[in-house]
Amino acid sequence: MEPTAHHVRVSPAHDVPTAVDQSIDAAVHRHVEDFLARYLAERRAELPELAATFAQAVDTLSDFALRGGKRLRPTFAWWAWRAAGGPADGPQARAVLHAVSALELIQTCALVHDDLMDASELRRGRPTVHVRFTEAHRAGGWLGEPERFGMAAAILLGDLALAWADDMFSGAALTPRMREAAREPWQAMRAEMFAGQYLDVLAQAEGDESEERALGVARLKTAAYTVERPLHMGVAFAGAGPATIEAVRTFGTDIGVAFQLRDDLLGMFGDTEVTGKPAGDDLREGKRTLLMAHGLDYATRAGRAADADLMRDALGDPALTPDTVARVREILVEVGAVAESERRIDTLTTSALAALADAGLTDPGATRLADLARAATRRDR
Amino acid sequence: MEPTAHHVRVSPAHDVPTAVDQSIDAAVHRHVEDFLARYLAERRAELPELAATFAQAVDTLSDFALRGGKRLRPTFAWWAWRAAGGPADGPQARAVLHAVSALELIQTCALVHDDLMDASELRRGRPTVHVRFTEAHRAGGWLGEPERFGMAAAILLGDLALAWADDMFSGAALTPRMREAAREPWQAMRAEMFAGQYLDVLAQAEGDESEERALGVARLKTAAYTVERPLHMGVAFAGAGPATIEAVRTFGTDIGVAFQLRDDLLGMFGDTEVTGKPAGDDLREGKRTLLMAHGLDYATRAGRAADADLMRDALGDPALTPDTVARVREILVEVGAVAESERRIDTLTTSALAALADAGLTDPGATRLADLARAATRRDR
Repeated sequence: MEPTAHHVRVSPAHDVPTAVDQSIDAAVHRHVEDFLARYLAERRAELPELAATFAQAVDTLSDFALRGGKRLRPTFAWWAWRAAGGPADGPQARAVLHAVSALELIQTCALVHDDLMDASELRRGRPTVHVRFTEAHRAGGWLGEPERFGMAAAILLGDLALAWADDMFSGAALTPRMREAAREPWQAMRAEMFAGQYLDVLAQAEGDESEERALGVARLKTAAYTVERPLHMGVAFAGAGPATIEAVRTFGTDIGVAFQLRDDLLGMFGDTEVTGKPAGDDLREGKRTLLMAHGLDYATRAGRAADADLMRDALGDPALTPDTVARVREILVEVGAVAESERRIDTLTTSALAALADAGLTDPGATRLADLARAATRRDR
Repeated sequence: MEPTAHHVRVSPAHDVPTAVDQSIDAAVHRHVEDFLARYLAERRAELPELAATFAQAVDTLSDFALRGGKRLRPTFAWWAWRAAGGPADGPQARAVLHAVSALELIQTCALVHDDLMDASELRRGRPTVHVRFTEAHRAGGWLGEPERFGMAAAILLGDLALAWADDMFSGAALTPRMREAAREPWQAMRAEMFAGQYLDVLAQAEGDESEERALGVARLKTAAYTVERPLHMGVAFAGAGPATIEAVRTFGTDIGVAFQLRDDLLGMFGDTEVTGKPAGDDLREGKRTLLMAHGLDYATRAGRAADADLMRDALGDPALTPDTVARVREILVEVGAVAESERRIDTLTTSALAALADAGLTDPGATRLADLARAATRRDR
C-alpha cells in the first residue's frame, strides 16, 4: 500500500530526496510527501520575523505531518484521476498531484484536533501534538496549567493546517474547468468529516448503542472523507461524467465502511506495534464503533446481560485494565460480533469491486483502485 | 461605524431582510450579513441527511456568527476597494462583497476557538459556544465530562467555520486577475492571525512582561489580521500597484496597533454593557497587553515594586476580586501607563492618517477609511 522507501526516511522536510526523477505512478506516496515537504517549508519561510516563536511551533506541526501515515486520501484520488483517463505526467498531472497532496493537510488538522478531543497520548507511536506542548510547558515551569497551553497550541496548529490545506489546494495550477469540477467534492469532504467527528463525539456522550448511529459515523467520518470524496475529486479532475462519479462514489462508500470495520477490529485486537496506539484505546475512549454496537446487540439478544453490562462499563472507562480488554475481546468473539464484522467486510468489498467494474474505468488506474480497496480492508493491513 | 439598523434586528438567518434594494455603500454591514446569512443557510441545507444532529449544532454556530459584531474586517476591505477605484455596484462589486464577507467566518473560527482557549464564559453578552455545548451535555445528563464535550463541539464548529470561510471566498465570482491579486493577503492574514494567537498564549505562559512581545502580538493578532490585510485585499481587488498597497498597509498597521491599545484600555476600564465581557477579564485571563507591559515597566522604574508585584499577581489570577481590579486600574493611571496608551493612540492615528493621505486614494472611500480609523480608536468606541 505504500512504498517501502518511506520507512527508511528518518528526517523531516529539508532532507527529503525529491522524487521528480521517478514517474508519479511508481511512487505516488513519495511524490505526495515531496509536495507536502516543499509546501510546508515555503510557508514557514514566509512567516514574518515577528512570528519566530510560532515558526518553531510550526516545525512540530511539519514534523507531525511528514512523519508518516499512509497518504491514503491522495493515493485514492491519484488513482481515480488515472483510472478516469488522466495522464501520468505533464503539467496537468503535476497540478492534480499538488492539489490532492493538500488532503494530507486536512488530515493533519483532523488528527491533531482529534487527538486533543480524545485526550490521546500517542499517535504513530510518538507523543501527540497537545502532549508535546503540554510537556514543553511543564519542562519550562511556565505559568498556568500545562494542559491548557497544550490545548491552545494544538488548536492553533490544527487550524493552521486546515487553512494551509485550502491555500495549497488553491495554489495548484489547475485549469478553471478542473478547479470548478473539484469544488463539490472538496467542499463536501471537509463538511462531512467535521460532521462525522461531531456525530462520533455525540454518540459517545449520549451512550448511543445503535448500529444506525455507528454506521452514520463510519459513513461520514471514514467512507465519505477518506475514500468516496477523494475518488470523486480524482475522477472529477479528469472530466468524468455523472455515471462514473456515481459508480466511484458507491465503490468508495462501500470500501470506506469496510475500512472502518477493519479499523475497529484492529483497534480492539490489533498489535500496538502496528497501530501505534495502545491496545483497547478505542474502548478506553468510549468509541461507539459498529463492532461494539454489534457486540452489545448480540450479547443482549443472547441473554448475556452481564456481558453486555461489562462491555458498557468498559466503554469510556479511563481506568480500563488489560484483563477487561481481554474479556471484552472474548465476548466480541463469542457473541459473533467479530464474525459479523468479517462477513460485512467481505460483502462490502465484493459490492465495491462490482461497482468499480461497472464504472468504465481504464488501467492501470482501475486495477490499482481494486488493489487499494483490498489492501485497505485486509487483516494484515 | 455601523448602521443602527443592525441593533434592532433580533432574529438570525432566515428573517434577515435583504439589502439588495440599498446601495452597498449605504449599508456595507447589512450587505455583509445578508451574504453571510444566505451562505450559512445554503451550506446547512447541503449537509447530508445522516448529519441531522450536526446541522443542529451548525445552527448554534450560525446564530453566533449572525448575532452581532462590528463586521470590521469586511468593512475595511470594502472601503479599501472603493478607495482604490472599485465601483460601488455591478457584478465585480458584488463579487468583492461576497469574498470579503468570508472574513467574518474566519473571525467566527477565531472567536469560537479563542473563547475556548481562554475559558471565557461570555461573548457579546451571551454564553460562548463551548459553554453552550457544555451546558447541553450537563442538562442531558450525558456520559463523560461536560467540559470535554463542550471543547470538542467548539473545536469542530470553529474548524467548520474556517473551512467554510475558504469555500465562501473561493465561491465568489471574482475575475482570475482579482483572485490572483487577493491570494497574498488572504493567505498571510490567516497565518498571521494564528501566529498572533500563539504568541499571545505563549507570552501568558512565559509571563513575558516585555513591551516588545506585547507589541508583536498586537501587530500580528490585531493590526495584520483586522486592518492591514483586509485593506491590502480591498485595494488588491481593485488592481492597486505596490505603492498604494504599501501605503494602506502602513495605515493599517498603525491603526491596528492603536485599535489594540484602545481595546486594552476598554478591557481594563470599559463598561461590561458595552464590551459584553466582565470587567477585568483580560487581567483574569493573564493577557500580556501593551497597557500592562507599560504599567509593570513604569511601576518598577518608579520604585513601586509592591505595586508591580500586585499587578503580576493579578495577571492570570482566576479568583481576582473587583477590589484588586480597581487597585490595578489606579496603579495604571498613577504610573502613567494609561496616559502613555492615549498618547500612542494619538500618535499612531496621526501617522496612519498621513500614510492614508499619501496613498493617492479617491473619495468617498478615502474619507470613509479615515472615519473608520478614527472610530476604531476613539474612547467611546
